[in-house]
Amino acid sequence: MSRKTIRDPIHGNITVPEWCVKILDTPQLQRLRRIKQLGFASLVYPGANHTRFEHSLGVMHITAKLIKKMECSDRVKRECVAAGLLHDIAHAPFSHSSEVLLKRYLRFEHENIYPVIKGSELEDLLKDEGLRLKSVVEIVKGESVVSGDIDADRMDYLVRDSHYTGVAYGVFDIMRLVDGIEFNGLTPIISQRAIKAAESLLLSRFMMYPTVYHHHVCRIAKKMYEKALEFCFEREMLEPEEVLRMDDYDMVVFLRSAEGFAGEIMKRLDNRKLFKRAIYISRNRIPLERIDAKIAEEEIASMAGVEEREVIVDVPEEKEAREFKAIVEVDGEKKRLEEISPLISALKEAEKTSLMLGVYTPKKYVDRVAKAAMKFFGIKEVVQKKLDEVLPIW
Amino acid sequence: MSRKTIRDPIHGNITVPEWCVKILDTPQLQRLRRIKQLGFASLVYPGANHTRFEHSLGVMHITAKLIKKMECSDRVKRECVAAGLLHDIAHAPFSHSSEVLLKRYLRFEHENIYPVIKGSELEDLLKDEGLRLKSVVEIVKGESVVSGDIDADRMDYLVRDSHYTGVAYGVFDIMRLVDGIEFNGLTPIISQRAIKAAESLLLSRFMMYPTVYHHHVCRIAKKMYEKALEFCFEREMLEPEEVLRMDDYDMVVFLRSAEGFAGEIMKRLDNRKLFKRAIYISRNRIPLERIDAKIAEEEIASMAGVEEREVIVDVPEEKEAREFKAIVEVDGEKKRLEEISPLISALKEAEKTSLMLGVYTPKKYVDRVAKAAMKFFGIKEVVQKKLDEVLPIW
Amino acid sequence: MSRKTIRDPIHGNITVPEWCVKILDTPQLQRLRRIKQLGFASLVYPGANHTRFEHSLGVMHITAKLIKKMECSDRVKRECVAAGLLHDIAHAPFSHSSEVLLKRYLRFEHENIYPVIKGSELEDLLKDEGLRLKSVVEIVKGESVVSGDIDADRMDYLVRDSHYTGVAYGVFDIMRLVDGIEFNGLTPIISQRAIKAAESLLLSRFMMYPTVYHHHVCRIAKKMYEKALEFCFEREMLEPEEVLRMDDYDMVVFLRSAEGFAGEIMKRLDNRKLFKRAIYISRNRIPLERIDAKIAEEEIASMAGVEEREVIVDVPEEKEAREFKAIVEVDGEKKRLEEISPLISALKEAEKTSLMLGVYTPKKYVDRVAKAAMKFFGIKEVVQKKLDEVLPIW
Amino acid sequence: MSRKTIRDPIHGNITVPEWCVKILDTPQLQRLRRIKQLGFASLVYPGANHTRFEHSLGVMHITAKLIKKMECSDRVKRECVAAGLLHDIAHAPFSHSSEVLLKRYLRFEHENIYPVIKGSELEDLLKDEGLRLKSVVEIVKGESVVSGDIDADRMDYLVRDSHYTGVAYGVFDIMRLVDGIEFNGLTPIISQRAIKAAESLLLSRFMMYPTVYHHHVCRIAKKMYEKALEFCFEREMLEPEEVLRMDDYDMVVFLRSAEGFAGEIMKRLDNRKLFKRAIYISRNRIPLERIDAKIAEEEIASMAGVEEREVIVDVPEEKEAREFKAIVEVDGEKKRLEEISPLISALKEAEKTSLMLGVYTPKKYVDRVAKAAMKFFGIKEVVQKKLDEVLPIW
Repeated sequence: MSRKTIRDPIHGNITVPEWCVKILDTPQLQRLRRIKQLGFASLVYPGANHTRFEHSLGVMHITAKLIKKMECSDRVKRECVAAGLLHDIAHAPFSHSSEVLLKRYLRFEHENIYPVIKGSELEDLLKDEGLRLKSVVEIVKGESVVSGDIDADRMDYLVRDSHYTGVAYGVFDIMRLVDGIEFNGLTPIISQRAIKAAESLLLSRFMMYPTVYHHHVCRIAKKMYEKALEFCFEREMLEPEEVLRMDDYDMVVFLRSAEGFAGEIMKRLDNRKLFKRAIYISRNRIPLERIDAKIAEEEIASMAGVEEREVIVDVPEEKEAREFKAIVEVDGEKKRLEEISPLISALKEAEKTSLMLGVYTPKKYVDRVAKAAMKFFGIKEVVQKKLDEVLPIW
Repeated sequence: MSRKTIRDPIHGNITVPEWCVKILDTPQLQRLRRIKQLGFASLVYPGANHTRFEHSLGVMHITAKLIKKMECSDRVKRECVAAGLLHDIAHAPFSHSSEVLLKRYLRFEHENIYPVIKGSELEDLLKDEGLRLKSVVEIVKGESVVSGDIDADRMDYLVRDSHYTGVAYGVFDIMRLVDGIEFNGLTPIISQRAIKAAESLLLSRFMMYPTVYHHHVCRIAKKMYEKALEFCFEREMLEPEEVLRMDDYDMVVFLRSAEGFAGEIMKRLDNRKLFKRAIYISRNRIPLERIDAKIAEEEIASMAGVEEREVIVDVPEEKEAREFKAIVEVDGEKKRLEEISPLISALKEAEKTSLMLGVYTPKKYVDRVAKAAMKFFGIKEVVQKKLDEVLPIW
Repeated sequence: MSRKTIRDPIHGNITVPEWCVKILDTPQLQRLRRIKQLGFASLVYPGANHTRFEHSLGVMHITAKLIKKMECSDRVKRECVAAGLLHDIAHAPFSHSSEVLLKRYLRFEHENIYPVIKGSELEDLLKDEGLRLKSVVEIVKGESVVSGDIDADRMDYLVRDSHYTGVAYGVFDIMRLVDGIEFNGLTPIISQRAIKAAESLLLSRFMMYPTVYHHHVCRIAKKMYEKALEFCFEREMLEPEEVLRMDDYDMVVFLRSAEGFAGEIMKRLDNRKLFKRAIYISRNRIPLERIDAKIAEEEIASMAGVEEREVIVDVPEEKEAREFKAIVEVDGEKKRLEEISPLISALKEAEKTSLMLGVYTPKKYVDRVAKAAMKFFGIKEVVQKKLDEVLPIW
Repeated sequence: MSRKTIRDPIHGNITVPEWCVKILDTPQLQRLRRIKQLGFASLVYPGANHTRFEHSLGVMHITAKLIKKMECSDRVKRECVAAGLLHDIAHAPFSHSSEVLLKRYLRFEHENIYPVIKGSELEDLLKDEGLRLKSVVEIVKGESVVSGDIDADRMDYLVRDSHYTGVAYGVFDIMRLVDGIEFNGLTPIISQRAIKAAESLLLSRFMMYPTVYHHHVCRIAKKMYEKALEFCFEREMLEPEEVLRMDDYDMVVFLRSAEGFAGEIMKRLDNRKLFKRAIYISRNRIPLERIDAKIAEEEIASMAGVEEREVIVDVPEEKEAREFKAIVEVDGEKKRLEEISPLISALKEAEKTSLMLGVYTPKKYVDRVAKAAMKFFGIKEVVQKKLDEVLPIW
């Protein structure tokens, strides 16, 4: 049987069976080589240039290990592997960076890979292998080995993001966890001997969020990019649908040549002349759920006497971590991980309070925007002048 | 200036100044080469053969980095380095394995290094360097860079124990933490930019405890050794004071040749014929603080019809983790880490509930001892028959 | 003193002094974020997306350690650090991939950083710091801590390229080598205790060349890109000078929109539809120095009946590794490393014979081009049909 | 099917099938927990406390991967796995440290595991599994997957010794090599795609020898131990046969209590008061093969006026590395690795010249012994006075 071996810094040698090589060789998969896994995080962590392509390979690799324990048809197993490979195929340039915007304009969700595959050579390749497109699509969307509470996706990205950022927090023990996952039909169950490893995965996640994924400079760059894109959409300089066919290269060069605000923002991103934090407040002090970022930006900008698009109000979304709900089998009984692990239920609480609201603006406006934002949010005092000295990293 | 470089798998090259080389070359320090850092843990983790010697070097190394930020006399700084090197010099064979017993017989505490140094060539070496023995002793005992809430000792052992056991949980980021520690006089203060790294240290600790330090097989071996030693003390086959002069080699060979129960236990340890768990119960179900292990052993043994020394009741000590109290400076204010970190206050709760009470006995007695123990503790039912299948590792 | 800390997966935390932060913040340095260190190697090693930016930081970091041992003015030391940071500033898109071509058209050499700095804000920044542009330029070009026989440049890239490709061969021991380098004026001297570490560096290099730098698929992609670029130069679709102002993003998007052959090649690179090896022969069997690639391409194409640009003849350059000449001090005498190390003199020989000549062409022409090439080079037989099965990796 | 999982720092989780667990649980295997893999190397590399037990597990693990490619009966495959587990069972205390001596007294070779197994419970366990003792013994002795030119034994120890010493040289790529080994009957053949990985293994070996295995301080400690043991044998204080039943613990405590020279040497080893190099000369300058160490020691001692046993003449054995002969399949032809790899044939030459002859003696005699030794060997001058400053490490 023909197969290829690809070298991966995380998993060592990844063996790719012939039918997966064919999928890899499609333009849709090759495009992922040019979409950065962490969007603009390389502005903070210079090593974070890794792509959705290698991540997809990694997810395929872990999935291929996990399916060995599933009791189901060979077809379903291979559909899981295909799902692992294809799960990120619908990502827009810079991965999650434009997601909120594309949701608004297109009801887009990167988990919906159906439109990308349907009618393309990928559909034929799946058919040739006797795999059902619908089934693959469902595996990517639903509770599954690729996309569930404890899944191959996050097993790969936590360790991979750690390797490339150089942040040690993500280094949990994939192999111990893989060894300890059993299946109930298609649902992964964590066996008792793997509880510590599962906890470790969630701890990694808990540490990676503030340090990498929610690092304020990453958020600033992402929000600036979002604003530039919105500017283009509003002026019909770019069709939202078109974004889905672009890669990072197309987008960067498009924005460079864009007129006005969009071009300025891209120049700022190119030269790392980023907006700065005017204020940065724990969600403990502000009820996030009641804030409409759009209105807040308008009001603060007007109070500060700057243009609306020079003010970014970044209200972090409160998504409950699904991992906490992962099923564990203890002494023959199935329970939710958060029920049996005091650590996990503790993390759940702690996670909520770690979210931060930020207001960002060009350096020269920081003082007046800060004053206006404090007034707007009804905050008396905020230790603001030292903000830029407490960056954990650049 | 003369100095030596020693290769360490954790810290790379450790540079040892000449005056420390002299300390290293004493019999007291060289003895630490023959005392295993983790006692009998190598019966579970075969790689865990590392010693107090290399750990002491590591603590010296981290201390040498930390003192650069202290504002105090050069003498005090070097006293800190000496304390790092000497802090474990009073350990008995197999490190912590006999501590409870030696406390009972000798009021021994391994933190008290004074008697080992006083009158020895070490005292002279310190004096020659202009260092004060008293001061070194105090640094080892007290709240300090070597032995405080967040200190060089645990920075080294967590990562070192992780390297040798192969458990990835201990891999936190020493350098980021070291970079972020400032000093207020001699007290280490965690600066804002290092909070994540400090949390990471405590998470490592939290994960290492159940997986390594409190792994039930490590506990079983340790308790068996304790029983053997107690047997020798009671029959005056060995003076408690003598233990402090022995190393692992002396102790193993002494016990091998000991008569009766002590010799039998050593044979069991040599051949890994360990006691098994009869019951294993979370402290949630039993009020640990009210249990007298000695009495419990007697009663259970008598109820089960076996000799008292064939029953071990292992009541884990409830020590509050001092690290939670480490001082952090946030926006110019000093606070306890547990006050400002929701994660840490959550860990504090979680840690309490993770302790387990175990009753151990030779394999052949497991059933009857289990029955007796359940009766003694008033427990109706305990999922016991599967106990040995849920070992996370051998 | 103000400074920043940047997280690097290779060196951990890199501390950047304030004056270097200013240099980092220029468009010239920021551009390096968008130039891949290994050009098209990510088509073979999917993790190899790292950039000249992080490498430049790494070289600065190692240089900053090495200068501590130099006996020279503080100014010269800081000029070395600046040289470390600036040494790759003149790189064209995809690093070395177009170097041969740019040399032909522009007499370009990436080591000549003078034109990039002269007249730019970088010149002012250096002046403000009291550093001499000329001196910095010389350090980059000449025998120095940044660019000599054993230098900070290769110390960084070998380990960095290893980390991102996942190939373990490059993991030599930077710190031991840095510890063991002394200086004679500005010339680095390897001390006796570091000979093994220096040998190890050269072994890494020796292993990385065939596996990564000269991997035939990397060579194929590079040569295809070169052909596409040459096509554009010849037809005046692009000014050679302009290339030096572009980054990878500009170049990719430019070539995508280019007409004819150039656009086709870019499409092939995007979709990884690469040329294949028609023949691949060790230089033992062919006297490389007598081959003119241009003429060979013409002849072989004409013999095979395909267009000239569909045939690539890749004649590897024979550059003697300068590292072999590094100076070592043994028992007080200075010698060349190759004189005292039997291993190194052996490597020198071995390296010559590892070079391979390749003829590449689109898959459909492989058979006839192979036949023609064998005829052209006067080779009777070449084990060709299995060529694509012996890829060490994809 | 029952099995256990053991945590290993090198290979991660090692799965041990039930029948191997039974072998592991014998006193013969458990004894290996108490025999250090690298003898006295921990006196130089403090982390090198790892044991033959974990190494044996590692060899079993790699063997279990390699047999998957063998085309032979399941029985033979399991005999290979058993051989991997049992191959070091006949080692004396401190592994190779007493080998020369035991060979002289007992014609002992640690590869001969027959006498240890014959008649013990191990023989029964093998029989119960349907495995042939003879076959297992042959696999350990002969050209095989466990003990050949490129075998599981050295694949494990190079990486393991690297992990525990902290020397990065041994980190070659096991998995790539394992992937690339095919079998011709029972003989391992390196396939073309694994040549680089095989070269890398041999490079690791080449670098580990002078840095670790032949480090002069390791040699000194080993030779001192040998002398102490010889002293005991000559005076019949210890039967040579008895040594084979002892472990490191027994031996250390026996020597501590031994009278005269043997006890003194042990005290020196305990306190790291080692002999020093009087002279240290490359074999280029002395024809090693003509030297009788015994006679040299006598003569030099007498010329220097010290007791014979205070002088150690260490003549390194010249063993040709069998790995160089490993079989490679290139383009369908089988060849010796050294024939096709210019690197390997170069290493072969280089290796010979790296051997060093050393004369060791207590510090106080260094000067006169050096003088006598130079006279004895007819050497005019030797750069001796700086010897102890060029230690690569402590």
